[in-house]
Amino acid sequence: MKGAVLYGPRDVRYEERDEPRIVEPTDAVIRLAATCICGSDLWPYRGINRTDAPLPMGHEYCGVVEEVGRSVTRVRPGQFVIGSFFASDNTCPHCRAGYQTSCVHKQLVGGAQAPRLRVPLADGTLVATPELPSDPLIPSLLAASDVLGTGWFAADAANVKPGATVAVVGDGAVGLLAILSAKQLGAERIIAMSRHPSRQRLAREYGATDIVVEREDEGIARVKDLTQGIGADAVLECVGTPGSMKQAIGAARPGGYVSYVGVPHGVELDAQNLFFRHVHLHGGPAPVRRYLPQLIELIFSRRIDPGKVFDLTLPLAEVGEGYRAMDERRAIKTLLRP
Amino acid sequence: MKGAVLYGPRDVRYEERDEPRIVEPTDAVIRLAATCICGSDLWPYRGINRTDAPLPMGHEYCGVVEEVGRSVTRVRPGQFVIGSFFASDNTCPHCRAGYQTSCVHKQLVGGAQAPRLRVPLADGTLVATPELPSDPLIPSLLAASDVLGTGWFAADAANVKPGATVAVVGDGAVGLLAILSAKQLGAERIIAMSRHPSRQRLAREYGATDIVVEREDEGIARVKDLTQGIGADAVLECVGTPGSMKQAIGAARPGGYVSYVGVPHGVELDAQNLFFRHVHLHGGPAPVRRYLPQLIELIFSRRIDPGKVFDLTLPLAEVGEGYRAMDERRAIKTLLRP
Repeated sequence: MKGAVLYGPRDVRYEERDEPRIVEPTDAVIRLAATCICGSDLWPYRGINRTDAPLPMGHEYCGVVEEVGRSVTRVRPGQFVIGSFFASDNTCPHCRAGYQTSCVHKQLVGGAQAPRLRVPLADGTLVATPELPSDPLIPSLLAASDVLGTGWFAADAANVKPGATVAVVGDGAVGLLAILSAKQLGAERIIAMSRHPSRQRLAREYGATDIVVEREDEGIARVKDLTQGIGADAVLECVGTPGSMKQAIGAARPGGYVSYVGVPHGVELDAQNLFFRHVHLHGGPAPVRRYLPQLIELIFSRRIDPGKVFDLTLPLAEVGEGYRAMDERRAIKTLLRP
Repeated sequence: MKGAVLYGPRDVRYEERDEPRIVEPTDAVIRLAATCICGSDLWPYRGINRTDAPLPMGHEYCGVVEEVGRSVTRVRPGQFVIGSFFASDNTCPHCRAGYQTSCVHKQLVGGAQAPRLRVPLADGTLVATPELPSDPLIPSLLAASDVLGTGWFAADAANVKPGATVAVVGDGAVGLLAILSAKQLGAERIIAMSRHPSRQRLAREYGATDIVVEREDEGIARVKDLTQGIGADAVLECVGTPGSMKQAIGAARPGGYVSYVGVPHGVELDAQNLFFRHVHLHGGPAPVRRYLPQLIELIFSRRIDPGKVFDLTLPLAEVGEGYRAMDERRAIKTLLRP
């Protein structure tokens, strides 16, 4: 089969790779209905994260189970399933506490930008849909694999409750779906920090009530203006840079919550500043597995449509163009059809 | 009147100061039943915090109201009252959210190591006891003014719930009372990180079930050993140094809670480390005012005896010896009788 492999900065190739097969008895192999490119794939693509090339790319996936190892009991061939970027056993103490991305047996799932994929720890990792989905549901189910689950974690980790005033830093797919998630969790006011008109439109569609185009200190001042000087109850940081984190911490009210769900790059936090700001801070690699059953239900019942974050769909063979479009911010997120 | 004044490193003098008086119509003046020396007073005493000398010292107090300003309506002369180190109006949005130490009108209360004290924003700051306390209750009520309220906030901010496994970093008065607080909030297991026999004894009396004498990486490993490799549900950091914070973050389980209640000195946090550890982080200057009514009730009903942290009692005139005893770790905490 052919899939996406990164060789170096901005050098993604669509080339022959080994066929996935059952290696461990707990594995499954699935045929992908769709896959996609993640904002986090741009870190190695841009050469900001060093990687061991050649690197098979992709960690977002949904599709039909083709084969399972002999220890797999919950997942059966023919089921349509969704999993997350970390395989997890879903039985260890960290999984049971809802932190499957800290599973004691966690394994990164890689190489999903391909027609087929090996998923370790299939019983713990994969969640089956109630029935085979119709084609229009595929983008939303694929979003649940990472960006929706991550946006949902951002809202949950920031304690978004009915009536809350929420600010979202970052207008990528995760930020936009953090808005959708905050709305679902009952936020009354959602301030989207975005300066891109097409993303602002989707932000509003997903529930944003206010748009702030200013950044850093000016952005903080705008959020304060919009909240009678108080600050937001919850700020969802969906970028991972020093500037975005600073903006998030500054925009929260004393006693408010800041969540952060993008891998922080070069972010040092001054504990004394956090101390006097009285913020709650929580984040990490989103335990998407925790939320998958609920998200699948919301998608199947058509109450949410997270698939709209895919504003570019390409055949898998054109994966290189998919990366370029996201790198140049011509696309929010690229869906790839194997 | 005479009170304590800091002139420079290790130079505390007991000398004549102006009599406190009503300055603002929202003030009260109280006659102190007792006052004390705080671990945080040692930062300027040791010259680690620079201060504008001469500096009247002390911020922990309880006593009888002598006089109130014309706008004061809730507090009356003759009442026995307790307040916190930050005066707060208790009506602004931050106060109503329970963060009185971020009150928009907050003012530091200073100069409490004296017979009398001016307290600003008396209606918001002071809480009256149900009746005049008997003398044996005075140390516990004084503890509620800061160290008990701060230990309680440590436990609350770390989400201590019935059945929780808790680790406490720091065996000063705040750490010891954090143990008491965790016990009151239902913790099942409380690991005290302490290497001082007299403090270990009080830790056990307050509810510690395990003592860990190791520090930093070895201390973390011990907590992991004691928790089947999982880590603590809640870690209460009651020191404020880089080493203690590192120890606290490392001892928490993924998805666990770390609170920090001592002003951090030189602590930089690597956000990527926090991210992959999945900890919740919350702290700040303890909003003691939030807890005072509850703490007073617990003390009056004799369910807690936080006053035991005072293992040295001196006349106020011997305040210099009180500082020396704490600086040399001969005393956990010094109570001063005006």
